[in-house]
Amino acid sequence: MSKLWSFQTLRLSCSAARCVFITTLRKDSPFTEKFFTQTLDHFNFNSFGNGTFCQRYLISDKFWQNGSGPVFFYTGNEGDISDFALNSGFILELAEQQGALVIFAEHRYYGASLPFGKDSFSRPLVGLLTVEQALADYAVMITELKQQLQADNCPVIVFGGSYGGMLSVYMRLKYPNIVTGALAASAPILSTAGVGDPRQFFRDVTADYEAVSPQCSAAVRAAFQQLQDLAAQYRRIQSAFALCQPPSAPRDIHQLNGLLRNAFTFMAMLDYPYSTHFMGNMPAHPVKMGCDIMLRGPDLLANLRDTAAIVYNSSTPLSCFDLYNLYVECADPTGCGLGPNSLAWDYQACTEVELCFESNNVTDMFPPMSFSQADRRRYCSERWGVTPRPGWLRLQFWGDALSSASNIIFSNGDLDPWANGGVRRSLSSSLIAINIPEGAHHLDLRGANDEDPESVVRARKQEAELIAGWIQAERNRQKH
Amino acid sequence: MSKLWSFQTLRLSCSAARCVFITTLRKDSPFTEKFFTQTLDHFNFNSFGNGTFCQRYLISDKFWQNGSGPVFFYTGNEGDISDFALNSGFILELAEQQGALVIFAEHRYYGASLPFGKDSFSRPLVGLLTVEQALADYAVMITELKQQLQADNCPVIVFGGSYGGMLSVYMRLKYPNIVTGALAASAPILSTAGVGDPRQFFRDVTADYEAVSPQCSAAVRAAFQQLQDLAAQYRRIQSAFALCQPPSAPRDIHQLNGLLRNAFTFMAMLDYPYSTHFMGNMPAHPVKMGCDIMLRGPDLLANLRDTAAIVYNSSTPLSCFDLYNLYVECADPTGCGLGPNSLAWDYQACTEVELCFESNNVTDMFPPMSFSQADRRRYCSERWGVTPRPGWLRLQFWGDALSSASNIIFSNGDLDPWANGGVRRSLSSSLIAINIPEGAHHLDLRGANDEDPESVVRARKQEAELIAGWIQAERNRQKH
Repeated sequence: MSKLWSFQTLRLSCSAARCVFITTLRKDSPFTEKFFTQTLDHFNFNSFGNGTFCQRYLISDKFWQNGSGPVFFYTGNEGDISDFALNSGFILELAEQQGALVIFAEHRYYGASLPFGKDSFSRPLVGLLTVEQALADYAVMITELKQQLQADNCPVIVFGGSYGGMLSVYMRLKYPNIVTGALAASAPILSTAGVGDPRQFFRDVTADYEAVSPQCSAAVRAAFQQLQDLAAQYRRIQSAFALCQPPSAPRDIHQLNGLLRNAFTFMAMLDYPYSTHFMGNMPAHPVKMGCDIMLRGPDLLANLRDTAAIVYNSSTPLSCFDLYNLYVECADPTGCGLGPNSLAWDYQACTEVELCFESNNVTDMFPPMSFSQADRRRYCSERWGVTPRPGWLRLQFWGDALSSASNIIFSNGDLDPWANGGVRRSLSSSLIAINIPEGAHHLDLRGANDEDPESVVRARKQEAELIAGWIQAERNRQKH
Repeated sequence: MSKLWSFQTLRLSCSAARCVFITTLRKDSPFTEKFFTQTLDHFNFNSFGNGTFCQRYLISDKFWQNGSGPVFFYTGNEGDISDFALNSGFILELAEQQGALVIFAEHRYYGASLPFGKDSFSRPLVGLLTVEQALADYAVMITELKQQLQADNCPVIVFGGSYGGMLSVYMRLKYPNIVTGALAASAPILSTAGVGDPRQFFRDVTADYEAVSPQCSAAVRAAFQQLQDLAAQYRRIQSAFALCQPPSAPRDIHQLNGLLRNAFTFMAMLDYPYSTHFMGNMPAHPVKMGCDIMLRGPDLLANLRDTAAIVYNSSTPLSCFDLYNLYVECADPTGCGLGPNSLAWDYQACTEVELCFESNNVTDMFPPMSFSQADRRRYCSERWGVTPRPGWLRLQFWGDALSSASNIIFSNGDLDPWANGGVRRSLSSSLIAINIPEGAHHLDLRGANDEDPESVVRARKQEAELIAGWIQAERNRQKH
């Protein structure tokens, strides 16, 4: 290990100038960007001594009943924390109602919270990227910030969407001494722990298009079939899909299929009733829009291309599609995204988070593309030199054996292909499933919008009531 | 790190000849000694790859209702697992009543479960010794052994005494998906997490002698005063205490005080109504015996020496006391013992487990000997190159914020100086405190004995009923 990471160097304070990044917040943002001096390794006193790194968080006391109101803490997930803050307006709205302090904490190894800067993804430094370390970060951060802010008796509610929702659940499971309750929106805690059917995800993506019209999913299926029938006619494929380079091998066709499948996945996940700027730009009702294009005319390949363009053309209009730059295959068959955050997520999918989902053209409309545990092991060994640990997440975070837990809301939108990888039925009077028929991926965490379906308005209301109840019960408990 | 610990070398199977140690079990023991291929590092996929070590466990299916009876799992603590098996006969007796499979698992870095053999305590290899790793070991071992033994639906109850009892509590807190309930005997989960009064421990040791007679504790106090009054009369001190070497500096007197205080501590902890061979040999009612000696005649120093001899002379009669070989000062002011197990415990006391107990000659009968967090920091930095983390155990394992937990028995004996560092009052209908007025350190875990006071007989009966109830409730839950 290079001298750079010696104990002395690492014992820095995050108020030091070196930790102050250029803020990504707009001037009128209710949040202040801060950095927390965080322990590098919570589980080994000999690896980095008590070395620290700077962990970013956003904080807003705009609505806080100083020293007495609750703390709403977003357990950041696989990306820049400001993206989640910008797309989780419900938490601020709820804070206004309930007089809460709001903190959005960034997950280690994402955004500006890289423990070792640009070397963070080299070995063995990447080894400190685990779910357990991230949870310990949040537990320590909550405990210390509450002391600093003289908020010792303020109940803490954690919030998260998707993987962030999984972390919220885990915080309540593992640290109920610190966290009074959790709102886990669209948290696929079962499917990512290897519980359930590996065909579920792409089956449910397909169902979204089927729901618009059976003709739509049939058209997608037929279009993929046409592509397959073209076999090695690479020039025709290049022209049909406006590819920057002609394919030259079956591997390129596999990549094209992955890129196309990924477009349908994204539109399904982000099928909001208004246009959004979260994980790229997305028009309102993208699934409906995709189906309109798929059923536009007889040139199925052109329709398929133009449907994918809803996703890949959304930020900058492209003159051609670059197969290997728009989509990168990784240990997550639903896509890792691009850039440094995608590296971190790929590593997590190679270690703890299990995402062995398959499409098979029988239970879904996509070409058969499997990702077995054996595929995963091979890929992860080559890419990261690690051996995934199937069953670990289930063992560590309880899988479906949740009967002893309490105070968790599992919210899911029926449009979201992740939904059926999560908890869909209430397990007790304090483990509540809220299903949102017209909801896509954690729609309920977004701020109120005129286009909101009634079901999400109702869900947010129920969530607000449950959370207020938990806080009240905690205050009553404190009195005794 | 030496080549010896490369990934390839570590990926061994514990059925290999290299892992078979000479068994310490007697031929008529109900236990078989086995080794489990355990993951070295549960929390870092890049430190030792998926390297493994051989973890020892003892197993008895003598009373098991094959495939359906419960599993009683002892979460091994700071020593050779066979010592705990030999001194926890209640678990086998209960197994006979309830048709249970019994497993005693050895804690990593103790006994024969040294992950790196004789190098285990060198840096950085000692870094894999943490409470979290030990718990993950047990969680993985239970899960895999249940699969191997086709015991998938068999409820698991964990048992432990002292630090082992803390681990049992933690297993139920952190892995209720794996563990249905816990009997934590004499588990000081509060005092070791920095919750409570640092004077409590030696105050309660003193109370045991006071309870025999106020003259007894007064005599101890007076004897220590005489020793102090001798100041630098080292020859006289040598002769009075039969020391092998004369003291030559205040440090030696400090060592002598520590050694003497430790004898009183051990007699109080192990104040059983019959002679035992646990942590050395101890006569029946050692506190009473010590007080008899203390009040024997006017030579207080001789009385003090002969009282200490109950502990230090118990295995082999000594011709003189060797100050630095009979007692080693460490990060645990109640003593770390001797040998390799004491190294591991010292390291744990230097990292996660907080044992900053003080005697002060006001609230107790001993000379003032403090061990502050600053003392601890200094010692641990010099001895192990680590910085202790005060507050970590409380944050990680909930301290006294246990309201969301369930199915734990906290049993304590009133004679045990550890008792008031644990949970003494029931917290709910499933967090039950059982107090045993005539009990010393986890007396209830010991097998039935004719000399048992009625209170421990009652306690064991109550424990058996509670555990049977948990198992029944778990079976009912499984049916739905």
